[in-house]
Amino acid sequence: MSEIVTAGMLVIGDEILSGRTKDRNIGHLADMMTAVGIDLKEVRIVADDEEAIADAVNALRKRYTYVFTTGGIGPTHDDITADSIARAFGVPCEYDARAYAMLEKHYAARGMEFTEARKRMARMPVGAEHIDNPISLAPGFRIGNVHVMAGVPAIFQAMLDNVIPTLRTGARLLSVTVHCPYPEGTIGGRLGEIQKANPETIIGSYPKYQDGSFWTELVIRSRSQETLDAAKAEVEAMIAELAAEG
Amino acid sequence: MSEIVTAGMLVIGDEILSGRTKDRNIGHLADMMTAVGIDLKEVRIVADDEEAIADAVNALRKRYTYVFTTGGIGPTHDDITADSIARAFGVPCEYDARAYAMLEKHYAARGMEFTEARKRMARMPVGAEHIDNPISLAPGFRIGNVHVMAGVPAIFQAMLDNVIPTLRTGARLLSVTVHCPYPEGTIGGRLGEIQKANPETIIGSYPKYQDGSFWTELVIRSRSQETLDAAKAEVEAMIAELAAEG
Repeated sequence: MSEIVTAGMLVIGDEILSGRTKDRNIGHLADMMTAVGIDLKEVRIVADDEEAIADAVNALRKRYTYVFTTGGIGPTHDDITADSIARAFGVPCEYDARAYAMLEKHYAARGMEFTEARKRMARMPVGAEHIDNPISLAPGFRIGNVHVMAGVPAIFQAMLDNVIPTLRTGARLLSVTVHCPYPEGTIGGRLGEIQKANPETIIGSYPKYQDGSFWTELVIRSRSQETLDAAKAEVEAMIAELAAEG
Repeated sequence: MSEIVTAGMLVIGDEILSGRTKDRNIGHLADMMTAVGIDLKEVRIVADDEEAIADAVNALRKRYTYVFTTGGIGPTHDDITADSIARAFGVPCEYDARAYAMLEKHYAARGMEFTEARKRMARMPVGAEHIDNPISLAPGFRIGNVHVMAGVPAIFQAMLDNVIPTLRTGARLLSVTVHCPYPEGTIGGRLGEIQKANPETIIGSYPKYQDGSFWTELVIRSRSQETLDAAKAEVEAMIAELAAEG
C-alpha cells in the first residue's frame, strides 16, 4: 500500500475574515488534493498579521507533508506573506535575483516604472524556489514543504497546476456516493454498525434539508475498490430493508 | 471607545476537506460578525477527529472572546462534535434531560421511532445550554465561550440568529470601498505612505484580475467616521494624481 501523504492549507487575508471576499481557493485545493490522493487534513484562515501567519505556518508545516498558502504576495503594504514565512523559517527575506531581473525586464518591456512596490514582489525568504505564475508574472515560492501562492483564484489555480506535478502523491482515496431518501435519525444506528463492520472504509453521512424535507447523502471512501464495493453493498441493502419496512 | 470583541470559528467535517461539500458558513459568519462589530480573527477547518476538534477548540477558546463551531451535531456515527467539545472542556458528555424530552415528544407526535441514533442528538457536555434550532429541532449548545451549531447552512444560520443577541458586541468597524483603476504595482508605494499617515485605519488592497486587465479595490476600515473620511480623501487624491500623470 502506498504511503499516506497529507496537506495543510493556510489562507491569509483580512478580506476573507471580514466577509468582504468569499474564499474560493479552499474548495479548489480540496478538490485537487482529493484528485491526486493527498489528504487535506486542516485549513486555517488568519489575518494579515506577521505573527499569526508565522505561527500558523510553523504549526502546519511540522504536522503535514505539504503546506499550501494563498494570499498576501502582492506589491502593497498589506502583502506581508513573504516576510512572515521568512520569520517562520528563521531566515532573512531578501530580493530574489532571478525574480527581480524577471520583473525588471517585464516592466521595462511595457514602458512601466519598476516601482518600489513592484520590487516588493521579488522579495522571498532566502533559499526559496520559484513557483511560476503564468498570469501576472510575479512568482510564488516554495521553501521546505511550504508552497506560497497568490490569493486571486485564477492565479492561485495556475500556480497550483505548476506545483501538483512536483508533489509526492498517495494512493487515491476512492469514493462512491449513495443517495439515501431517509433522514439521519432513521439510518444512524444501522449505519454505525456498517461502519464498524467495514473498518477500512470511511463512511460519511451528510444530512440534507430542502423544501421542508430531510434526506441524506452517504459517501463511502476507501483506498481499495474491493472494500469500497463491499461497504456500498451493505449500505444499499440497508436502504432496501428500510423501504421494505415502509 | 468600546472594547474590542474577537471571535474564532471552527468548521468540522471531512466533507469540506475532501472538497465534496463547499463551505458556505465561513462567509456568512464573517458577514454577521462584521455587521455586529465583532472581529473574526481566525478560522480553522478540521476533520471528523476527536483529538483534532478538541485541540482546535482549546486553542481558539483561550485566544478569542467567542468561538463558533459548525458541523458534526447530527445523529450518525461521524457526528462527534459533542464528545469532542466535552473532551476539550474536561467534562462528561451525557444526555441532556431537556433535549431528550423535547426530541422524545417530537418523534412520538409524528409516530416516528426515537432511535438510539436520534437519542445521540440529545447528548451534550455537562453544563451546556441550548441554542434553539427552529428548523430541525435538535438544539445546538453553548458551553463557556464556545457556541456549537449545525453544519447545514440553513440550520446554522437560524441558530446563529438566536445566538447573536446574546453576544457582547464591539464598536462596529466602519468601512468604505474605493475603486482604483490602477494595478497594485502602480499604487503600492503611495498607498503604503497613506497607511503610515493614517495609523487608526486599516487599508486593504485587493488585486483584481479579469479579462486580461488588472485593477484594485481599496477598502479602508476604521472604528471612527472621522479617520475613515480623512484616509478616504487621501486615497481619492492619490487616484486623481495618477490620472493627471496619465
